[in-house]
Amino acid sequence: MNILIVLAHPEPQSMNAAMFTTAIETLRAAGHEVKTSNLYAMRFNPVSDQGNFTKLQNTTFYKQQLEELHATATGSFAADIESEQQKVEWCDLMIWQFPLWWFSVPGILKGWVDRVFAMGRFYGEGRLYEQGVFKNKKALLSLTTGGREEAYLKGGLQGDIHNMLKPIHRGMLRFTGFHVLRPQIIYGPARQSPAMRDRELDQWRNRLVEVFNEAPVEIGTY
Amino acid sequence: MNILIVLAHPEPQSMNAAMFTTAIETLRAAGHEVKTSNLYAMRFNPVSDQGNFTKLQNTTFYKQQLEELHATATGSFAADIESEQQKVEWCDLMIWQFPLWWFSVPGILKGWVDRVFAMGRFYGEGRLYEQGVFKNKKALLSLTTGGREEAYLKGGLQGDIHNMLKPIHRGMLRFTGFHVLRPQIIYGPARQSPAMRDRELDQWRNRLVEVFNEAPVEIGTY
Repeated sequence: MNILIVLAHPEPQSMNAAMFTTAIETLRAAGHEVKTSNLYAMRFNPVSDQGNFTKLQNTTFYKQQLEELHATATGSFAADIESEQQKVEWCDLMIWQFPLWWFSVPGILKGWVDRVFAMGRFYGEGRLYEQGVFKNKKALLSLTTGGREEAYLKGGLQGDIHNMLKPIHRGMLRFTGFHVLRPQIIYGPARQSPAMRDRELDQWRNRLVEVFNEAPVEIGTY
Repeated sequence: MNILIVLAHPEPQSMNAAMFTTAIETLRAAGHEVKTSNLYAMRFNPVSDQGNFTKLQNTTFYKQQLEELHATATGSFAADIESEQQKVEWCDLMIWQFPLWWFSVPGILKGWVDRVFAMGRFYGEGRLYEQGVFKNKKALLSLTTGGREEAYLKGGLQGDIHNMLKPIHRGMLRFTGFHVLRPQIIYGPARQSPAMRDRELDQWRNRLVEVFNEAPVEIGTY
């Protein structure tokens, strides 16, 4: 199978980077093809604007979705977007590896979605949710939190993490058709001992070996 | 009163820009002080990393929250962050004006939060939610959608927009203590006639004149 892994963390020695490297190695060892987007290492530009395109249909009034439709029809996405779009289109499974910042993905990953998930190419004309462009693909969020697990339960200090993730699961992934696998969550790795972190990496390896046998989880509507 | 208005839209002729300009003019005419952060016009850098700081406590392993605590203690935030932090600290009311992209804020605004809302300075050591640093301030999301209103109701195509906004309302604003005013939402301005858009701007003006009399809305837990 083909797997795209997107990493959004600035520190190569971080737990997120270790999860990223572990996934690459494990999936390749299992015989899969893996492509990656290490957004910080690539210095990916997350600001969505006129620079998304090699030419504009309307140079005096920037209407982003109309330009996306035009770029889809004319093949005029900027090179950095086109290459990311091709990776998403290529994969059977997409994994996002990131730290949960402010109940969401880091800005660099949000901007990757803003720029890469273009109207016409990735959605539109009724192609969304169950009829989404990527309805034959799966996606999996793998993330770390700052706090302990009890803070992310219903009634906990922050609240149920699955509700926090819903705009991502539903608004970005299900919206474009992806079937969502249960998130891989590491709670407070900064507070864990090296042995505990090794155990997290082992659990991740064990899960990934069987990941193509997993059934998607229900995300539900709002 | 002091108001900070943050704008995250790439097109100066957009409805978002018109809402931004209308708010500035209306609030100043009512005798308030207004400061702005026009993120696209400022070319604000939304990538949170070592560049957030003028000096690092640990130059070999980047741990963002520890660096934020260090920068809070030593006054070593990068100039572009320090100046945004001062605006937030100065204001009584903060307004974010943005298009809803992927059920969330644009990447440039998410990255503004990632970088500016620093541990130590904006939260930490029990100072969050009801005891948040900004518990004497208010915040208001003013946003536009792509689709029509019926798509954003419970059971609609996208679902209840207030649930989509909850990670922002709770995870960014209530988390740091802000009391949240009801969001100002314009549904599908691209589909509206000029007269309808003018009416939206009028409603915004009328609301802003009385905005300091509004009671916050309940956001609730997860």
